[in-house]
Amino acid sequence: MQQRILVLGGDGFCGWPTTLHLSSRGHDVRIVDNLVRRRQDEELGVQSLTPIRTLSERVETWRQLGGQDIGVSTLDIARDYAELKALIGAWRPDAIVHFAEQRSAPYSMKSPWHKRYTVDNNLNATHNVLCAIVENGLEEHCHLVHLGTMGVYGYKTSRFKLPEGYQRVRLLSPEDGEESEDVEILYPPDPGSIYHMTKTQDQLFFYYYNKNDGLRITDLHQGIVWGTETAETLRDERLINRFDYDGDFGTVLNRFIMQAAIGHPLTVHGTGGQTRAFIHIRDTVQCIHLAIENPPVLGERVRVFNQTTETHRVRDLAQLIHGMTGAELQYLDNPRIEALENELRVENQGLQNLGLAPITLSAGLLEEVSDVAGKYRERCKLGKIPARSRWRARR
Amino acid sequence: MQQRILVLGGDGFCGWPTTLHLSSRGHDVRIVDNLVRRRQDEELGVQSLTPIRTLSERVETWRQLGGQDIGVSTLDIARDYAELKALIGAWRPDAIVHFAEQRSAPYSMKSPWHKRYTVDNNLNATHNVLCAIVENGLEEHCHLVHLGTMGVYGYKTSRFKLPEGYQRVRLLSPEDGEESEDVEILYPPDPGSIYHMTKTQDQLFFYYYNKNDGLRITDLHQGIVWGTETAETLRDERLINRFDYDGDFGTVLNRFIMQAAIGHPLTVHGTGGQTRAFIHIRDTVQCIHLAIENPPVLGERVRVFNQTTETHRVRDLAQLIHGMTGAELQYLDNPRIEALENELRVENQGLQNLGLAPITLSAGLLEEVSDVAGKYRERCKLGKIPARSRWRARR
Repeated sequence: MQQRILVLGGDGFCGWPTTLHLSSRGHDVRIVDNLVRRRQDEELGVQSLTPIRTLSERVETWRQLGGQDIGVSTLDIARDYAELKALIGAWRPDAIVHFAEQRSAPYSMKSPWHKRYTVDNNLNATHNVLCAIVENGLEEHCHLVHLGTMGVYGYKTSRFKLPEGYQRVRLLSPEDGEESEDVEILYPPDPGSIYHMTKTQDQLFFYYYNKNDGLRITDLHQGIVWGTETAETLRDERLINRFDYDGDFGTVLNRFIMQAAIGHPLTVHGTGGQTRAFIHIRDTVQCIHLAIENPPVLGERVRVFNQTTETHRVRDLAQLIHGMTGAELQYLDNPRIEALENELRVENQGLQNLGLAPITLSAGLLEEVSDVAGKYRERCKLGKIPARSRWRARR
Repeated sequence: MQQRILVLGGDGFCGWPTTLHLSSRGHDVRIVDNLVRRRQDEELGVQSLTPIRTLSERVETWRQLGGQDIGVSTLDIARDYAELKALIGAWRPDAIVHFAEQRSAPYSMKSPWHKRYTVDNNLNATHNVLCAIVENGLEEHCHLVHLGTMGVYGYKTSRFKLPEGYQRVRLLSPEDGEESEDVEILYPPDPGSIYHMTKTQDQLFFYYYNKNDGLRITDLHQGIVWGTETAETLRDERLINRFDYDGDFGTVLNRFIMQAAIGHPLTVHGTGGQTRAFIHIRDTVQCIHLAIENPPVLGERVRVFNQTTETHRVRDLAQLIHGMTGAELQYLDNPRIEALENELRVENQGLQNLGLAPITLSAGLLEEVSDVAGKYRERCKLGKIPARSRWRARR
């Protein structure tokens, strides 16, 4: 059944291919974006490795190819509440997909200004969306799908699989060691950066608005996204998705892919013993589509899925790319404050039970190196590769 | 040993008597306040039952009585980051007491504007303070004392005492029921209003800045404050503390006290079966003094105390006042979404171990009714007594 869907942050790395995928599946999609991600490129003096077009050229191309019209509202949801409220009230979306947050951990740590921007932007953005749904009386109508992060769980090694959001625990009495009934709680959060902190705070917004106002919310705890193109963005070069390789917005695997393509050593921070969860961008758009077509029922608590398909140790990924391409490894100081090495096992059956068929790393990696990073390698600025944000100024 | 102490929100109901108490104990105290609480009185068309003076008259009176000079910086810590940073850098406080948040649950629920104001103000205020301490390189020097609320725990009935911040739990594996090592976690939060939600989000700010930057932080989970005067505010009528009786900022026991003094029925919302934690304002100022004189050591996790001395069921308090004064009870609809009845047992030995000698309700109540509420009864506006904020617009 066709849904009216607002995609907040629909011009971004995940938002744009999601918009096209939902449109291609017959939904009526409208983008809300303040284009800040393009201004951040200017701030950092870097560009997407792939030559992305303006948002108006993107949606016009989609229309020319026979796709449905995609509306665009250029507004800042963290600032322009009146406009956001009016848009939601007039358009009455069945679903809102919320990507409109500052999404880089290193960017959030660059300076006090960047910390404060990330907090102010992400928290007001999320709260404004929730508040506008309630103010328009759409609590029971509009399903909110939020892009969270696996990082809310933290990266301590645990004997157990990380659950999908909720953890069964037994409270232990400090008085006499008596054991209580078991209860389910939101998994105890352990953010590793200012960016991750805002995502753990988002969980409390969702918990509260679900409890008090009955909002139906799906929170997707996404792994690190890799890859660039989806079936829809491949239809025309003018639809191409962005590819970030810089030290702030570039994600680890895409950075390795680009480094291999240009003959740069693969930059491993610390021991590379960090184990992380990954997902291909094509699976991201599939997952969001599945979440939208399977909303929580009225009265259901916030639904949480771990949106990730596999876990790898960072140095193993570097070795894998080395094996495929011959690129050397370069070990650098770790700017983050984090465990040197960690194990990570993740429960992720929820989305697969809804029909997700994952793309594995081994299947897609080489294609990505040659078709995307190789093709646009001339656009790379070498000076933008180093990661310069530090988690503490004085150490 | 004398400390330099910034009191953020030092013009408010808790902030003003705390400022005087710390000054009287020999500390060098400076107030930072944007005077918003006085503007909220104007917004709501109400005044403190007690005739409070301007902040400049307050500090001048204190000086005339032989007290130390108390500096004043009129700035909005949620907005004026550059000024806040400069003040902290120049003044290098040993401790910062942070009261500068919107502190009323009903006010936070009055309208979408009030929800958004509370979120934007409280979260940016707290984050700006943390960020400014780090930017000035005072992570290891400056102790942050924050006024939180017992409400972060929620008001579900538990078989156990609520601990002081941290709960020992046993994680249960969803795979095979295998039990893990026991771990200590922040008590799972369960906010009951937008206001309370921001306080649970504050906990994540503190957790992160303590972990990443090594800040020393004490978070005081305060019960509902009652009473008006402290030893210091009683020294001159021009030092009098505020007394709120209106439906937004008035706390339940002070409202009963005022209602008894003017012959108004005691307004009980719902069944009055809500059990809450209480503390007298004189104990509040004592507790903050104790927290400041006993800071966490470097490397210690966020220290949490439950700043409350006794628990009571709301209808039992109404009965107690009825017995003392003859005032009748009036049961009204409950505008809140909450459990009708709950039990509440609270661990609160931490501050008592540091030397807190609590004032009990039975000892102070009648004096409060006659000396404060009775004395200023003519200033009461009857129309401001009803609580009009509703937790959901449509029910």
